[in-house]
Amino acid sequence: MPRTVNTEIRVRYAETDAQGVVYHANYLIYFEVARGAFLHAHGIDYNDLEAAGTFAVVVEARTRYAAPARYDDVLTISATLAEVRNRSFTFSYRVTRGDTLVAEGETAHVCVDRSGKPVRLPPELTGLGVD
Amino acid sequence: MPRTVNTEIRVRYAETDAQGVVYHANYLIYFEVARGAFLHAHGIDYNDLEAAGTFAVVVEARTRYAAPARYDDVLTISATLAEVRNRSFTFSYRVTRGDTLVAEGETAHVCVDRSGKPVRLPPELTGLGVD
Amino acid sequence: MPRTVNTEIRVRYAETDAQGVVYHANYLIYFEVARGAFLHAHGIDYNDLEAAGTFAVVVEARTRYAAPARYDDVLTISATLAEVRNRSFTFSYRVTRGDTLVAEGETAHVCVDRSGKPVRLPPELTGLGVD
Amino acid sequence: MPRTVNTEIRVRYAETDAQGVVYHANYLIYFEVARGAFLHAHGIDYNDLEAAGTFAVVVEARTRYAAPARYDDVLTISATLAEVRNRSFTFSYRVTRGDTLVAEGETAHVCVDRSGKPVRLPPELTGLGVD
Repeated sequence: MPRTVNTEIRVRYAETDAQGVVYHANYLIYFEVARGAFLHAHGIDYNDLEAAGTFAVVVEARTRYAAPARYDDVLTISATLAEVRNRSFTFSYRVTRGDTLVAEGETAHVCVDRSGKPVRLPPELTGLGVD
Repeated sequence: MPRTVNTEIRVRYAETDAQGVVYHANYLIYFEVARGAFLHAHGIDYNDLEAAGTFAVVVEARTRYAAPARYDDVLTISATLAEVRNRSFTFSYRVTRGDTLVAEGETAHVCVDRSGKPVRLPPELTGLGVD
Repeated sequence: MPRTVNTEIRVRYAETDAQGVVYHANYLIYFEVARGAFLHAHGIDYNDLEAAGTFAVVVEARTRYAAPARYDDVLTISATLAEVRNRSFTFSYRVTRGDTLVAEGETAHVCVDRSGKPVRLPPELTGLGVD
Repeated sequence: MPRTVNTEIRVRYAETDAQGVVYHANYLIYFEVARGAFLHAHGIDYNDLEAAGTFAVVVEARTRYAAPARYDDVLTISATLAEVRNRSFTFSYRVTRGDTLVAEGETAHVCVDRSGKPVRLPPELTGLGVD
């Protein structure tokens, strides 16, 4: 199964700021979209996990910004599953426009139950790390 | 009890767009902030309503834009309770910067229970309409 | 040329709120995405208009909410050019998930120059109203 | 001059997500609000810098999430100027609710001119690092 999944987004006007470029916080949302596409590509419906009482939460996020993106740009967001452990998983991301690197980053996640208590990853997620 | 409550917000860079002005959708968020301030001014903690199983949902919203607002502008958002009925309530809003009208609008709301079924307004809200 | 253009979006987690549904302000962003798709379908690159000194601004927006949408829902946003005048244009929208109407609304727009002064619509936009 | 400035924000409903907590990307916006308050506390109007042709851009951002925040929570965002160099500056942040650490992070910034070319920091900003 692919450890990297690409997805495309088109920059919305709402995502730009007064400098005419995508506001930096929005890249974390692009990462979220790419994570969702990754899960879909692996046959996982995240809503099913939540319905079963498991909630993935972000515990750490990093972003490095290399070049601005503008309204209507089509960006490729590449999400790579970097690590899966019993109680956490990590994704890394690259955002590109054609050959231009726009941004890159990482997010680390744990799973919690309905009460917010950390729990082991469900088999759907630990299975992602098995080649 | 006052039917109009004013609150101030300072425009965030994240709320601007590539035209250098506040993106139009954000005024609905400013209205939400003003509604929250209105409820606080009347001693209502909206979280208590949700904890008791009543959720206010927006069923209609209108906004008219009169003048642009920019990063770091301090805006006054004035929320007026326009109508309270058994099953709905309506607010109207004015956004001003000094003497300049920036935007105005209205939102209509109903209450639903946890399953999404419409319910009568709780007494905290119907009481708002009593002079 | 079609007066209605459909586009699909997938609801992002960032767009949901504590009620578990899409926060109401985000529908104005979905409308923006649908307007962009409409312009693309008619061969218009909005960035070209701005580069030529014409900026479309929203002067009024209305939204009616019919049913909630949730994370990962695929929504169809249908944008219809409702009216084109010398100095303004209006779009109407319908948001659906399968056969379910989720929301509908309208936005009215004028064009301004770099200084913010209202100007006549450029021919690319007035041409949209010609059958 | 204080190297740390505190500012308070109240969590907006728009900032929550379907887990009932503040969506993680919004903390970068809270950091922005705190940076703005820091500059104000030091007599700097960021709009003046942009009017003079200098634009601060984020080149890196990190966030660690310690505890969830919910609608209507009042959070203290503490911004500390961590480093000022000729061509870059760094802030660190702590987000707390009472005694509870909610999140912390860092952002690194450079300045660019209107064309996007990196430039030296203006004296207003380099002056911040002088005790």
